Amino acid sequence: MHVTLVHVIVKAEYIDKFIEACRLNHQASIQESGNFRFDILQNAETPQKFVLYESYKSVEDAAAHKNTSHYLNWRETVANWMVEPRQGVRYQGLFPRV
Amino acid sequence: MHVTLVHVIVKAEYIDKFIEACRLNHQASIQESGNFRFDILQNAETPQKFVLYESYKSVEDAAAHKNTSHYLNWRETVANWMVEPRQGVRYQGLFPRV
Repeated sequence: MHVTLVHVIVKAEYIDKFIEACRLNHQASIQESGNFRFDILQNAETPQKFVLYESYKSVEDAAAHKNTSHYLNWRETVANWMVEPRQGVRYQGLFPRV
Repeated sequence: MHVTLVHVIVKAEYIDKFIEACRLNHQASIQESGNFRFDILQNAETPQKFVLYESYKSVEDAAAHKNTSHYLNWRETVANWMVEPRQGVRYQGLFPRV
């Protein structure tokens, strides 16, 4: 698995809108053929902090996500709702073996 | 979902052993009745850094994991292989809704 943890800090007044934008992105992304996980997490202590857990079967599948209309819509929609630029951290998914 | 991201930094000479200990923990944990995800991730840039992505259906399910023999074995096995104490960060899993 090729995993990216995307860390986002959202301006407090946009939290609800951000969650809705992520719901739409989640629903479309899990239908991509190479997608394995697309989980949206909200920090339990600091509700402004989110993590998008994106897991794809191959590097190519992960790259293809960046060209989808739902990703591009999400990116544009949330751009001004972030406190600072989002941070993506890449991981090799060891287990489960997919 | 009740999610914990456990961040671990492993001494370089114990990376292979740590991965094997996590494989055993993963295999047993995904069979717990309340478990939803138990993914083991290795940082793509810094192989000493790992994340355990642990997702349970309820707080009680997550707490029950801490009493299992496989968790206790893992905790004891890897205790001296870490560069510093591991850090667990708790999240509310928003999507998928489980």
